[in-house]
Amino acid sequence: MTLEWIDLTIPMHNGMTVWPDDTPFSMEPDTRISAGSEVNVSKLTLSTHTGTHVDAPWHFEDNGKKLDEVATDVFFGEAGLVEAMDADVVSAADLGPSPLPSRLLVKTRNSTIPLGAPFQKDFVALDPSAAQRCVDEGVRLVGVDYLSVAPYQQPGQPTHHILLQNDVFIVEGLLLRKLSPGQWQFVALPLNLTGADGSPCRAFAGRESP
Amino acid sequence: MTLEWIDLTIPMHNGMTVWPDDTPFSMEPDTRISAGSEVNVSKLTLSTHTGTHVDAPWHFEDNGKKLDEVATDVFFGEAGLVEAMDADVVSAADLGPSPLPSRLLVKTRNSTIPLGAPFQKDFVALDPSAAQRCVDEGVRLVGVDYLSVAPYQQPGQPTHHILLQNDVFIVEGLLLRKLSPGQWQFVALPLNLTGADGSPCRAFAGRESP
Repeated sequence: MTLEWIDLTIPMHNGMTVWPDDTPFSMEPDTRISAGSEVNVSKLTLSTHTGTHVDAPWHFEDNGKKLDEVATDVFFGEAGLVEAMDADVVSAADLGPSPLPSRLLVKTRNSTIPLGAPFQKDFVALDPSAAQRCVDEGVRLVGVDYLSVAPYQQPGQPTHHILLQNDVFIVEGLLLRKLSPGQWQFVALPLNLTGADGSPCRAFAGRESP
Repeated sequence: MTLEWIDLTIPMHNGMTVWPDDTPFSMEPDTRISAGSEVNVSKLTLSTHTGTHVDAPWHFEDNGKKLDEVATDVFFGEAGLVEAMDADVVSAADLGPSPLPSRLLVKTRNSTIPLGAPFQKDFVALDPSAAQRCVDEGVRLVGVDYLSVAPYQQPGQPTHHILLQNDVFIVEGLLLRKLSPGQWQFVALPLNLTGADGSPCRAFAGRESP
């Protein structure tokens, strides 16, 4: 079986779009061959929630699991992608028929926002009914196509709380534009940060090539 | 087919062992729920060659490919692990019988160094004959169990140059201690850094579970 893998990860570079007031991403030269060094080495400064990234429960729940306490088998495996291209907010009914897959990717019109566009406050995200349905149907991982699973400045943050209090692992900022609805192999690997609230990750989806 | 995945990635935390004079790893609080914020968010500062990481050709070759120019299909797939537990330096003959696999993992006595030990200058690495054999036999990825594929302060750095001038992708700092010789499924995903010399990565090996 040969899988063709599609990169779902936002490119990371200086000036990239980040959540308002979050640490800007920076990659700066440390040593450079052009300056007489033996090697090129760089220094990174970034938030744990930069670009395509994961949320550990501890991001919103002070008694929740930190990233290294999350079982790593959730990072790999079959995922199901649903489209909700007309939704302004994703409700329970927009997630499609039951049963939901254990890894659920939700594609919305966020996937039409050009790469590199400035931060969009009106992005599409999951409302509390969608979050609760994920919990009720045993979803272990939910992946979304903008920088948050919840609408911007949602009062009380019920979407995040419902998901993270129930150990649903969240992957945000996925580039789902190349994916059609249906079943995919999915992998999202965060850095192995000890005691973290989240991490940038690299994510791919794969299908058997014809 | 169910794969059981083994994490090959060095945990990343403040005070972790890094290459001498490289940027120390730092994860610091940005916002904290315990300090009245809605969320826990952290700020990372690190080198592109921290912990388990990849080298792009541009790390040593100023006309070499940067990380985002490396074909991503090398990150996934079958790998073969060879053991050279008695070697002080890994030579061509230590890599085992031909043909070499396209992804080659080399396990040495580095895998007996305790996690968290200070930097070891006498780590085991590949000599130029081993690097040349990898090139000659079409190895696309070589993974090693310490922070460099080459011996410490190798004059002229032939091991790195032979590999990187020939676009052999290098994964360093793999925790191979749990792996036995033979065939594995392997994945090593670096961050999607634009124009980078390398990147920390998350790496796993998998085998069908019985």
